[in-house]
Amino acid sequence: MRKILQCIFLFSFIVTLDLYCFNQNSVAAQIKPLPTPGMKVDPKNTALVITDPQNDFLSPDGVAWNLVKDSVAKNHTIENIELLLKTAKVNNFKVFVSPHYYYPYDQKWRFGGAMEHSMHALKMYQRKGPLSLEGFKGSGADFLDRYKPYIEDGQTVITSPHKIYGPEANDLVLQLRKQGITSVILAGMSGNLCVESHMRELIEQGFEVSVVHDATAAAKINNLDGDIAAKINFRMIASASWSTNEIIDKMKSSHR
Amino acid sequence: MRKILQCIFLFSFIVTLDLYCFNQNSVAAQIKPLPTPGMKVDPKNTALVITDPQNDFLSPDGVAWNLVKDSVAKNHTIENIELLLKTAKVNNFKVFVSPHYYYPYDQKWRFGGAMEHSMHALKMYQRKGPLSLEGFKGSGADFLDRYKPYIEDGQTVITSPHKIYGPEANDLVLQLRKQGITSVILAGMSGNLCVESHMRELIEQGFEVSVVHDATAAAKINNLDGDIAAKINFRMIASASWSTNEIIDKMKSSHR
Amino acid sequence: MRKILQCIFLFSFIVTLDLYCFNQNSVAAQIKPLPTPGMKVDPKNTALVITDPQNDFLSPDGVAWNLVKDSVAKNHTIENIELLLKTAKVNNFKVFVSPHYYYPYDQKWRFGGAMEHSMHALKMYQRKGPLSLEGFKGSGADFLDRYKPYIEDGQTVITSPHKIYGPEANDLVLQLRKQGITSVILAGMSGNLCVESHMRELIEQGFEVSVVHDATAAAKINNLDGDIAAKINFRMIASASWSTNEIIDKMKSSHR
Amino acid sequence: MRKILQCIFLFSFIVTLDLYCFNQNSVAAQIKPLPTPGMKVDPKNTALVITDPQNDFLSPDGVAWNLVKDSVAKNHTIENIELLLKTAKVNNFKVFVSPHYYYPYDQKWRFGGAMEHSMHALKMYQRKGPLSLEGFKGSGADFLDRYKPYIEDGQTVITSPHKIYGPEANDLVLQLRKQGITSVILAGMSGNLCVESHMRELIEQGFEVSVVHDATAAAKINNLDGDIAAKINFRMIASASWSTNEIIDKMKSSHR
Repeated sequence: MRKILQCIFLFSFIVTLDLYCFNQNSVAAQIKPLPTPGMKVDPKNTALVITDPQNDFLSPDGVAWNLVKDSVAKNHTIENIELLLKTAKVNNFKVFVSPHYYYPYDQKWRFGGAMEHSMHALKMYQRKGPLSLEGFKGSGADFLDRYKPYIEDGQTVITSPHKIYGPEANDLVLQLRKQGITSVILAGMSGNLCVESHMRELIEQGFEVSVVHDATAAAKINNLDGDIAAKINFRMIASASWSTNEIIDKMKSSHR
Repeated sequence: MRKILQCIFLFSFIVTLDLYCFNQNSVAAQIKPLPTPGMKVDPKNTALVITDPQNDFLSPDGVAWNLVKDSVAKNHTIENIELLLKTAKVNNFKVFVSPHYYYPYDQKWRFGGAMEHSMHALKMYQRKGPLSLEGFKGSGADFLDRYKPYIEDGQTVITSPHKIYGPEANDLVLQLRKQGITSVILAGMSGNLCVESHMRELIEQGFEVSVVHDATAAAKINNLDGDIAAKINFRMIASASWSTNEIIDKMKSSHR
Repeated sequence: MRKILQCIFLFSFIVTLDLYCFNQNSVAAQIKPLPTPGMKVDPKNTALVITDPQNDFLSPDGVAWNLVKDSVAKNHTIENIELLLKTAKVNNFKVFVSPHYYYPYDQKWRFGGAMEHSMHALKMYQRKGPLSLEGFKGSGADFLDRYKPYIEDGQTVITSPHKIYGPEANDLVLQLRKQGITSVILAGMSGNLCVESHMRELIEQGFEVSVVHDATAAAKINNLDGDIAAKINFRMIASASWSTNEIIDKMKSSHR
Repeated sequence: MRKILQCIFLFSFIVTLDLYCFNQNSVAAQIKPLPTPGMKVDPKNTALVITDPQNDFLSPDGVAWNLVKDSVAKNHTIENIELLLKTAKVNNFKVFVSPHYYYPYDQKWRFGGAMEHSMHALKMYQRKGPLSLEGFKGSGADFLDRYKPYIEDGQTVITSPHKIYGPEANDLVLQLRKQGITSVILAGMSGNLCVESHMRELIEQGFEVSVVHDATAAAKINNLDGDIAAKINFRMIASASWSTNEIIDKMKSSHR
């Protein structure tokens, strides 16, 4: 019964969309389509930046897994992030990881937004303190085991943690600049929160930024689908919103 | 014919949503609903911040009118922004306006994202220069006439222009802090671009931020609906996502 | 012989100064003296911020000890920082520490200023990595043992490391805001570098900032005396430049 | 009489300095001299940035003239800034000016540091508002007439005003990045306030920065000499602290 209704829903959605598109064409004279600036991908000045490649989002044991698992499955997020890391290393692109950690005193913040409350309630990304690694290995705050060969190779720059969603309170911008990076390929978790806030802040700081729209995923909660928001904003704001396959091709052909 | 299909679409959408919600309840043990932290609204430390209340978006003569007019009509954006301005003034809330201007040398930037290219192609928010007001009055960069009594009363702080979408490159944060403001009621144009980037940056800077979800509007372009993205992200990220009516009630009762 | 010359030097210096001051008085009509705004000291919204209370500066084994030891001795820096920490704790002022760490990839930065080169050449503040504490305990990057009871009490907020001199690339501003702090009492190492850059950045971010001019010290190198620069700029820029004794009195009487 | 004492003072100062230097040599094993990293000067990625080239500092009618006139005379500041502007233009270096303006609501800020109070008391850099140029031409806030041919040529980027001392609250960083600038030659007014805060912030943002130590000047007030502080900090912090003649040679030979 539910399947049938979903079919009806899908069908009428497609028809409405078609009509909508048709109707749009009649005002095409007034609204020019959104441009696709694109971005040159060159290991000399382009880096891969990954946000939050951590167990709490990407492992079935993670405290936020239930929020994002559908989106992770749909996008093949786990595999795509690994493909990006591997391709970047093989083709000599610098890699920067911007992780997310919370310490006991962050739990005492006096105010915060909706998902901040959720993250603290879930005890996401918990560590004992900035100068303690007790209980860190394999915890929700740790990196996925499959990513560690790339992240812990002594070459990847692991920045200080971001504390809300963007890199405003960590050293990502400085680390990129100190390595001569002007263009960023951005991916990681989660789409409309940390990835999007990184995208927006890096653009405000004068970087050229492209996002990999299927090497990320987002929470579904209260019938809000973060992935929908992320994909709209990636396309409208970034220089390009590429699939993993598209950017991998560009990285591979960059040094020819 | 189109109306009928839209009805079918809407009906099946609602049924599917209901089923979806019902299904969600069974995993309620795993996913707690998104909290609604809310925010205290007190003129001592709370200000109204309006982004881009300018003709290019909100006047039928504006160069971006066609992109946003449907969303503006649906949200009653023009009236709601005016209601906010009026209510803030009557109830002694400080008002800050963060405008958007582009000068001739901004047209020569060497790179930019998709909507940046659109804005420059449309010649949005054009002024002759930072030290010229030639041709400014009544132009697309000027404020809506109906807002001028509130904005140009000598009390409203008009910040320097933001240059992409967020307040990173203007003095909004400093002006708020120098007046003892710690909480912000945010509205203006456009929803998923400047309003959302202001929301994100103000939160990263340690402000408590609530957004007025119907005192804003967003572009529809390439079948991307910015208003959908904005509403998802307002609700997930801010302390509250209120309607104009809700926040007006709060402002009115704040000094009792 | 050298002593005698120093006496002559000192004497003529004083005489010249007196003449200078006398001469200044005649233009007093034109130049008003520098105001002393001061700052209210209240544990509700005022915090103590200490930069770099680490062995590399403040322990005779530290790699930068020779650069600062004269200044440390003159100011009684080590004792004064401890007095501030103790007085803050006893009187319920929140304490924030902004440390300085360098990781192996920071050594590979492509460019930097003069003292940045010195710090890297000295291998100051070295740690194995952001997720390693190997060899940290008791190293030059570690806190002075005498400060640890105050810093490692589970209440002091230890921010992410700053990476050049200021807090632009760490979470100090956010941590202060999330605790409702609007005013800062600033001290630590070194005077004209990290303390002064913290002072300047916190002021730009809209904090009220006072500096404790003798709970800091600065490098002497190439006949440049950082302490001279620091004291001029503290007095000109901050809301107040207090001695340790002065601020201790204020903290003690703050909750009466 | 005063002249004679100044000679004695100067002589004993030199002797003491020599003795000091000699003494320093004996610890040369411990303290390595401060390195001079220098900086490549190339119009492709290097820009000239001038802060506050405005009448209030540099014109005898300016409200702050008395504070800086001695230092301006000693450094030949007025001529040197013009030489920099002229040389930059002739040799195709991009020029950015970061001005300082205050509007009536800035006078109502609730708190500020010492020199902030002075500036407001002097009514420095006053304009009627961000959208008014009434009374601006030739005022203390306006540029020196002799600099206008360079600043108002339609090529120089005039950023939004900075509001305290640094560029944190204006668009200088973004404008530089959007033009591909990674290295900055910095000069202007005043040495230990706006120039130094620009130097520090640009370095934190990952620019390579050199300062022109005699194309600036600083206030003398309360027997504090800002120029002394500025010169110490320029040398310690920047990649290079050059004279006007040195940097002019470098600009001239940059495109060979």
